[in-house]
Amino acid sequence: MPYPFSPLTSAIKDKITAAVTPGSVITENHALKIYTGDASKLHCTPEMVICPHSVADVQRVIQLANSYNFPVTPRGAGSGLAGGCLADHAGVVLSTERLTEIPVIDPVNGIIKVQAGVISQDVKSAAEAGGLYYPPDPAGMDLSTIGGNAATDAGGPACVKYGTTRDYILGLEAVLPNGKCIATGVQTRKGVVGYDLTNLLVGSEGTLGIITSLWLRLIPKPPAIIGLMCVFSDMASAMNSVTAIMASGHLPCAIEFLDHKCISLIGEMLPFALPGTTPSILIIELDGPENQIKQELSTIEQLLQRQGAAAIIPATNQQQRQEIWNVRRQVSLRIHDYANVYIPEDVAVPISAIAQLIDALPVYEKKYSVEIFAFGHAGDGNIHLSVTAKDSDNRDNAESAVKDLLALSLKLNGTISGEHGIGLAKKRYLPMELSPTSIALQQSIKKLFDANNILNPGKVFPDQPETTTT
Amino acid sequence: MPYPFSPLTSAIKDKITAAVTPGSVITENHALKIYTGDASKLHCTPEMVICPHSVADVQRVIQLANSYNFPVTPRGAGSGLAGGCLADHAGVVLSTERLTEIPVIDPVNGIIKVQAGVISQDVKSAAEAGGLYYPPDPAGMDLSTIGGNAATDAGGPACVKYGTTRDYILGLEAVLPNGKCIATGVQTRKGVVGYDLTNLLVGSEGTLGIITSLWLRLIPKPPAIIGLMCVFSDMASAMNSVTAIMASGHLPCAIEFLDHKCISLIGEMLPFALPGTTPSILIIELDGPENQIKQELSTIEQLLQRQGAAAIIPATNQQQRQEIWNVRRQVSLRIHDYANVYIPEDVAVPISAIAQLIDALPVYEKKYSVEIFAFGHAGDGNIHLSVTAKDSDNRDNAESAVKDLLALSLKLNGTISGEHGIGLAKKRYLPMELSPTSIALQQSIKKLFDANNILNPGKVFPDQPETTTT
Repeated sequence: MPYPFSPLTSAIKDKITAAVTPGSVITENHALKIYTGDASKLHCTPEMVICPHSVADVQRVIQLANSYNFPVTPRGAGSGLAGGCLADHAGVVLSTERLTEIPVIDPVNGIIKVQAGVISQDVKSAAEAGGLYYPPDPAGMDLSTIGGNAATDAGGPACVKYGTTRDYILGLEAVLPNGKCIATGVQTRKGVVGYDLTNLLVGSEGTLGIITSLWLRLIPKPPAIIGLMCVFSDMASAMNSVTAIMASGHLPCAIEFLDHKCISLIGEMLPFALPGTTPSILIIELDGPENQIKQELSTIEQLLQRQGAAAIIPATNQQQRQEIWNVRRQVSLRIHDYANVYIPEDVAVPISAIAQLIDALPVYEKKYSVEIFAFGHAGDGNIHLSVTAKDSDNRDNAESAVKDLLALSLKLNGTISGEHGIGLAKKRYLPMELSPTSIALQQSIKKLFDANNILNPGKVFPDQPETTTT
Repeated sequence: MPYPFSPLTSAIKDKITAAVTPGSVITENHALKIYTGDASKLHCTPEMVICPHSVADVQRVIQLANSYNFPVTPRGAGSGLAGGCLADHAGVVLSTERLTEIPVIDPVNGIIKVQAGVISQDVKSAAEAGGLYYPPDPAGMDLSTIGGNAATDAGGPACVKYGTTRDYILGLEAVLPNGKCIATGVQTRKGVVGYDLTNLLVGSEGTLGIITSLWLRLIPKPPAIIGLMCVFSDMASAMNSVTAIMASGHLPCAIEFLDHKCISLIGEMLPFALPGTTPSILIIELDGPENQIKQELSTIEQLLQRQGAAAIIPATNQQQRQEIWNVRRQVSLRIHDYANVYIPEDVAVPISAIAQLIDALPVYEKKYSVEIFAFGHAGDGNIHLSVTAKDSDNRDNAESAVKDLLALSLKLNGTISGEHGIGLAKKRYLPMELSPTSIALQQSIKKLFDANNILNPGKVFPDQPETTTT
């Protein structure tokens, strides 16, 4: 066992309970069950779940973890797809769900301060109430917390124009694994004082610190948003359209793609007959001043037609947009429930290589007796490859298919994770992408932050064969 | 002496010379002189200057530095304002000026790979030749290197819309202080695999690694750019205009400010009579589709008039724009040459607090017998406060004024450096902004990367009284 933690005895549980605000400890079995899983379909059972009411509560739990050698796994809303918030080594799950204050909304300076447990959609709404805009839109942002979004650097459709969660974080407050509090970054639009600890914590998947508050920058709200759904009879035309749009100087705020396997799951929802045997769908949205985006959308429609679009469904009002996004959302949900084995991958490749990646899928489907659904953010090359198998016994095969797909993505100058993160699910594959020098350096950073390895142990880095040094 | 380095004996110099590509060592005294200074007016004399021709050259110098205990100070073009590239502890200055290849320009995927010594303006030009746009525009980008821009996370007027250098760096190649090479980040638009070493190296001012190559993301080139220069009879009206513009949903690609002291240096260049005794100038630019920005500029002009603009000079073509930017550039140059003592500060504050900061300047001018010139990037609150004194003996007073100004900026929820960095010039002030926990953590990261402290020692962190531990 690489991490010989102490079990949480009743005595230790009592100490934890006494140290935090009354009402912070979850004890009912049915309630505890929620904290055993996330959206990855992986499961781990913690020994105890704490929902701190304050930063001081967080600090006390961490201090006790160092004293009594138990692991602490931070958790937002458990909507992650990589098992990053699961208590792989049991111990305490620390949920930020009660840290939900929004102490600062400052429309003049375009900044907002939020606690880590605020639901991401509520951040967007609070910004809009102040006349401003928080662009990131990860799937499930009506569930996920802003702290979880930061810990995983969550993406979403709008990334193609606006970047990821990281790009909106000016500064953080966090409890370090040694129990100390730290404030990083600035409350201004710029700041270059010392090392960028903010970005080091962001995307570290809760292994370097527990984020408790975030300073976010907001931008002016785009006055209008319109879009369309477009179907092609093949995938190549869809992908040629994506590269043509990006090369034409337009910058849509979403360019989503659904392959023919995804379309087969939601065919009945579509307002058009499906062309060909392997149809593809693009969902494209533009935001900005109304006149401008109307003109741009018309140019893009012409471009799509030149690429052989079989049908174009415009979405010029909110209801039409919602109908289209509902199709997109249903794809995720139906894949999730499609088969017993479900491995949600999210490679990213240069957009010119997407077609090559997707063309190769039938080879792996055949080789490993799996079904692979491809959809995602074509505008930034981030394609979700959901590898599924009806038969639970086929999990090993599905994992082999995943490994081949990751290798292919890397060969295409891509990455093994565009936005989901590594967590538990993909840690064994880390050495496929990162050099031994990089991994060793990152592990030494982890050790520097967390000498006792109490914070989210067993995540991100591959398990090592135990070495005995004396 | 906190860093007891070995002097570079002839024998060590010979080893270095033998280890690198012939022609990499600069020996002529007049040429060496260039490497003793930067734009901060500080000076340090290195024992040797190396201009590597390859990454292997860089590695070999670093390996020898570890073996023979001499410091290595990386340097781009020496256009920094904080002394970050000066050989404070003598030893070797390692200039990246000959690492000037651009091995990849990929317009389809919107990425470019450049070596660290490429001049920033050449990156912009290479992007434009591919039909794309590299937005960062730090002052002196016709001199500065992209590696130096990355090491300091350089800003510039366009930051208000486009962010800083950091926001365009997808990945890096660097030589670590232990001599190992590392590749960080991705070549795709997104990537969340492991810790964000890219952003840790960016802005670390050459203390954690020598950046040798960068993968940059490019965006579609805005089809048009127009602007204006506007003069007000007082500063408050100018600042009210800035907050009004930002609150109105417009996002200009520059909102520059000149205070009355700056204007007094370039009055003869202006095409209008100066109103009042403390006039202020704003330079505003918008980029995007021509129709849209013309409409926006007209709205902004009306807004400026409502705020009491005394004169508005439009810039609708390239020549008019250049005339306006020439005024702005002359301000920097003339302040630089204005007085014997010149300390270029670059605090950033929330934009709503700029007026309060500038209103306070006369108090410090009087208290310390200095003159303070305020200009800069009003749109993101990054104001350059150049503290000057005619009399060289007044340097201590000028430093006291700086310290007061930094304290005031922090009181206004600002930062002591918006874009110049800490380097040598401001390291003593680091504890004013960062907590002991943050500084200690950052110093331990430095130690982790650079156990022998050979890479750019004496920068960023305040000098410590020597402690003897055995």
